[in-house]
Amino acid sequence: MGYNVAQKLIASHLVSGDMTAGREIALRIDQTLTQDATGTLVMLELEAMDLDRARAEVSVQYVDHNLLQADGKNAEDHAFLRSACHRFGLWYSKPGNGVSHPTHMQRFGVPGKTLAGSDSHTPAAGSLGMLAIGLGGIEVAMAIAGEPVYLRMPEIWGVRLTGELPAWVSAKDVILEMLRRHGVKGGANRIIEYHGPGLAHLTAMDRHVIANMGAELGATTTVFPADDQVRAFLRAERREQDFAELLADTDAAYDVTDEIDLSGLEPLIALPSSPGNVVPVREAAGRPVDQVVVGSSANPGLRDFAVVAAIVSGRQAHPGVSFDVNPSSRQILQDLTKMGATFTLISAGARLHQSGCMGCIGMGQAPAAGHNSLRTFPRNFPGRSGTREDAVFLCSPETAAAAALTGRITDPRDLPRLLGIGYPDLELPAESSVNTAMLEPPPPAQAARAELVKGANISSLPDLPPLPGRVEAPVVLKVGDDVSTDEILPAGARVLPYRSNIPKLAEFTFAQIDETYAGRAHASRDSGHIVVGGANYGQGSSREHAVIAPRHLGLRVVLAVSFARIHWQNLANFGVLALEFADPHDYDRIQQGDTLVLDDLRRAIGADGGEITVRNATRDQHYTARHRLSERQIAMVLAGGLIPWLRERQQPSASREAG
Amino acid sequence: MGYNVAQKLIASHLVSGDMTAGREIALRIDQTLTQDATGTLVMLELEAMDLDRARAEVSVQYVDHNLLQADGKNAEDHAFLRSACHRFGLWYSKPGNGVSHPTHMQRFGVPGKTLAGSDSHTPAAGSLGMLAIGLGGIEVAMAIAGEPVYLRMPEIWGVRLTGELPAWVSAKDVILEMLRRHGVKGGANRIIEYHGPGLAHLTAMDRHVIANMGAELGATTTVFPADDQVRAFLRAERREQDFAELLADTDAAYDVTDEIDLSGLEPLIALPSSPGNVVPVREAAGRPVDQVVVGSSANPGLRDFAVVAAIVSGRQAHPGVSFDVNPSSRQILQDLTKMGATFTLISAGARLHQSGCMGCIGMGQAPAAGHNSLRTFPRNFPGRSGTREDAVFLCSPETAAAAALTGRITDPRDLPRLLGIGYPDLELPAESSVNTAMLEPPPPAQAARAELVKGANISSLPDLPPLPGRVEAPVVLKVGDDVSTDEILPAGARVLPYRSNIPKLAEFTFAQIDETYAGRAHASRDSGHIVVGGANYGQGSSREHAVIAPRHLGLRVVLAVSFARIHWQNLANFGVLALEFADPHDYDRIQQGDTLVLDDLRRAIGADGGEITVRNATRDQHYTARHRLSERQIAMVLAGGLIPWLRERQQPSASREAG
Repeated sequence: MGYNVAQKLIASHLVSGDMTAGREIALRIDQTLTQDATGTLVMLELEAMDLDRARAEVSVQYVDHNLLQADGKNAEDHAFLRSACHRFGLWYSKPGNGVSHPTHMQRFGVPGKTLAGSDSHTPAAGSLGMLAIGLGGIEVAMAIAGEPVYLRMPEIWGVRLTGELPAWVSAKDVILEMLRRHGVKGGANRIIEYHGPGLAHLTAMDRHVIANMGAELGATTTVFPADDQVRAFLRAERREQDFAELLADTDAAYDVTDEIDLSGLEPLIALPSSPGNVVPVREAAGRPVDQVVVGSSANPGLRDFAVVAAIVSGRQAHPGVSFDVNPSSRQILQDLTKMGATFTLISAGARLHQSGCMGCIGMGQAPAAGHNSLRTFPRNFPGRSGTREDAVFLCSPETAAAAALTGRITDPRDLPRLLGIGYPDLELPAESSVNTAMLEPPPPAQAARAELVKGANISSLPDLPPLPGRVEAPVVLKVGDDVSTDEILPAGARVLPYRSNIPKLAEFTFAQIDETYAGRAHASRDSGHIVVGGANYGQGSSREHAVIAPRHLGLRVVLAVSFARIHWQNLANFGVLALEFADPHDYDRIQQGDTLVLDDLRRAIGADGGEITVRNATRDQHYTARHRLSERQIAMVLAGGLIPWLRERQQPSASREAG
Repeated sequence: MGYNVAQKLIASHLVSGDMTAGREIALRIDQTLTQDATGTLVMLELEAMDLDRARAEVSVQYVDHNLLQADGKNAEDHAFLRSACHRFGLWYSKPGNGVSHPTHMQRFGVPGKTLAGSDSHTPAAGSLGMLAIGLGGIEVAMAIAGEPVYLRMPEIWGVRLTGELPAWVSAKDVILEMLRRHGVKGGANRIIEYHGPGLAHLTAMDRHVIANMGAELGATTTVFPADDQVRAFLRAERREQDFAELLADTDAAYDVTDEIDLSGLEPLIALPSSPGNVVPVREAAGRPVDQVVVGSSANPGLRDFAVVAAIVSGRQAHPGVSFDVNPSSRQILQDLTKMGATFTLISAGARLHQSGCMGCIGMGQAPAAGHNSLRTFPRNFPGRSGTREDAVFLCSPETAAAAALTGRITDPRDLPRLLGIGYPDLELPAESSVNTAMLEPPPPAQAARAELVKGANISSLPDLPPLPGRVEAPVVLKVGDDVSTDEILPAGARVLPYRSNIPKLAEFTFAQIDETYAGRAHASRDSGHIVVGGANYGQGSSREHAVIAPRHLGLRVVLAVSFARIHWQNLANFGVLALEFADPHDYDRIQQGDTLVLDDLRRAIGADGGEITVRNATRDQHYTARHRLSERQIAMVLAGGLIPWLRERQQPSASREAG
């Protein structure tokens, strides 16, 4: 039986494992993408690894998230990231160059390649026939260092597209239809692969819209074939030489299947506050709208802005609407301006913002509480806009433009009747005005080792010493079930500015649960300390800081009833031993303040079955605990975490540095 | 003897007083300007006055300051301001329409009129032969209500301009030369009036640059004649019918005189961190630059952006420079785009921001600490950029463009030699693309009374009851000399969001000095309370909140050794009795916690000499104290402040409302 596109991409990059769904596989990574919000930590990890030079074919550091610069910290982060690119040999995409995903696609995307990115919308590059996966920062740091990426082989979900989109319906409605059918968990542990005759009419940038927002289905990634549409895209970007056809074999099969008749779709909208709350626009029509925002990596293409400009051309945004246009990249804004559409948008009353992620990640243009905001963005989780009681709807550019004019949610198919506006027949330029001046190439390999430029708020990663042979340490904190990473380390305006300053950041650890934790943990720093947790410990956001910060305070072991998956992996990555009670009732027998002893730990961790005995010295009790670490992970935890483990493995390089 | 322009403007608007320098005069106000940062309070004041409808000829509420919208509060303020414009009959300039000063000049400026604005750069309208004065919010609220503005008659400072500016030198260098000569206090209690043959070559927008930044000299305002340049400007704005010539009489004289030969000027730059630290650019040349920002009300015109575009055309911003372009208004951005200059700027690597004040008032694009930032802005006070340890330089668009290309401070006259760039010969459009769609006109006078739209964070002004006949109240706080309004009521990210919520804001009163003050003041609310201060009480920022917040907590009397001028006036405006010790040694005899008694107060305050006896009931002592209130101010304080005083005076209108 032949391979589908996803299988071809995996097979050609398989370092270990086999392609059986659920089994761990290791993939060689060709390209990496980091953005500034996650990238500062990745660069600190590269520093801690003592990396001499990036080993992936292409590694690009984008600056697109923290552009508002309310104080000096963001600009200092930018200067740090630029110096890190000089030091480690990465491309640097300057602030203002645009959102990573469309920029990467336009300038670096190559069919058949793998891409690891520290951003959940990295799968957008699947639009070009790439295997593009969003990961935690440390895993991208490993990929930059030339190490493979490990994941469990997903199921491949073939979605066959037929027909052609009708007027006023566009790519965003395709992915909204997927979300309407399958909800925000429908893609879990799956790669979505689109195929079928309907693809012929979807441009590469249309596919970007669909692949990008596949993240909202919870999918591992989304892939499209590299076909003539991809070739046409690369030609327009003056990179046709990078094209390589990548199609599914004619006898390819899929683990799961679905089908969408594009000609049967209508304009859709996600109601507040989940991308999964999708209904036809006509069902939400008539509600008043105070804000319309066009842009983001979910609708980044020239076409997406041009269609809005064509609809509002010669008209004015409704007096009660803030009509915000957020160009996704400098190149797209340049093309939009060249074709006259920027002028049209400004004339119609648009607030034109700098190129970047902006409101999509809550960096500005937060709406008034309770006032409806329509956005072409990928996500509308509660509060993500920056406003706690927000009411954010997700829709296509066409639906957004209709609301900008009428001040109400409006099915764009009603525009001919309401305002005499016909569906625009867009004439887009055949070639992009390629301009790479805001992309600074890596320095030559033989260049002098550049210094890292660290502002006062940028520290190094803390040292990660190996797991000791014996732990005798106090239970500094005992918590209940379902503790989230937000409770372990809060986000928000008070804490986030310290994302690059672990010692300062660590002061906020567990502050929402127990403000005295950080001080007490610090007091036990010589022996280290232990946290005891209930079920589902570490649920929620994947933030690595929720491990790095307590680890900096001396956390050695978390003993819990059970762990949330990503946090469990993060604990291993940063050398904290995660143990589950063999008998959950033992949880009740331990009290905060007890001293626990784990003897002969380095031997015990490698023993069959992964069982470890924990002695409660305070109460003279014994508990059996289990880890679920793979051999690779055991080695990592023994070394102190991924970074020291890699440093050990790359000893020759490290000693070369030292010599 | 004839009149100069300033005298003509004053004489034609004089309600009371005579034009002797130092005497109080009252002026009729034709137009008002408020922006969002100060305007929310002004609108709450109009509400408290129970104003039926704005009585000035033109009152415009701009939204230009708080545009970043990190959470919902700014958008809620915008909705509130729009509803207040509907309620009180003001023009509403939507977010994105631009900075108040150039927008007001382009759309509303009329020679011979007076303008009161709650923004210190209001004098920019002097460019059109207007008398435009920046004032505290309550005074602008009074002007909106049709009341005159009171001030002490300034000296008139005639500055004669001769010659013509050489290549690479522009209007900004003229005002920087004034600052180089006279420093930031040189204009105190003066109106600067430019005259002479050099004016012939300065366009109205050039004059805007000079008048705007006259605020940095500490001048009351700046005026220019309304001559052919003004006529040409109004013609380009399609408002030639608004032109009225206004020239100084040929035998006019000035109280003070100075002269500048424009042909002798060279590019100038203000070093960190004062607009008065001016040196020739060549003396600062060579320093590395990380950020260049073009825009703000100090260089707002189409010409200012177009000259930058012409200089960078076909070139790229230096890789280490963030090249930020901040259009001052939608109309100017529209014209800039129409002439192709927006495309040129984007192509050269500009980060193009939304129209508004942005970094000029520290709302975004804060530079990295210690990294040099060159800006065409009017101010570089320490930390104003948003970065505490900033290094901000002020310069012309030409000097800014040179640094954007070279990455160093560069005398633009060196560009021909360094980069082969000749001084641009600009072709600007003869007509502006007038577009008023983002200016919402006041509703018709007979329209239904609109409701104020108040978000959760917008409260009403507290009630301001009349001064009681007897005060017996505790000294809740005793402070030392030179207490600033920043100490009375801090600004900053923690406090500013509550600028429209007095009860919440009041919790921060005196927090920097004594965190228990607010609680203790609240506990004495029935009797009210007293603060005892040293010399120069209330120095610093003019913020009215520093009176309104403690007044909300029950402050009745401040008894101090001496007061800073503006805070003293604010105390009177909000009905707090400011008393000075006749014998400063009495300050030492009072302790915090003492109970003071002021008997027969309403009579005593009107008595000759302004002396009042204060009895210390705790220590059985008597002190003599003096107020320095004018008769008008006595009436105001007795009424409870300006607002209740006005309400009393406008009783017929209030009873019409009630009827």
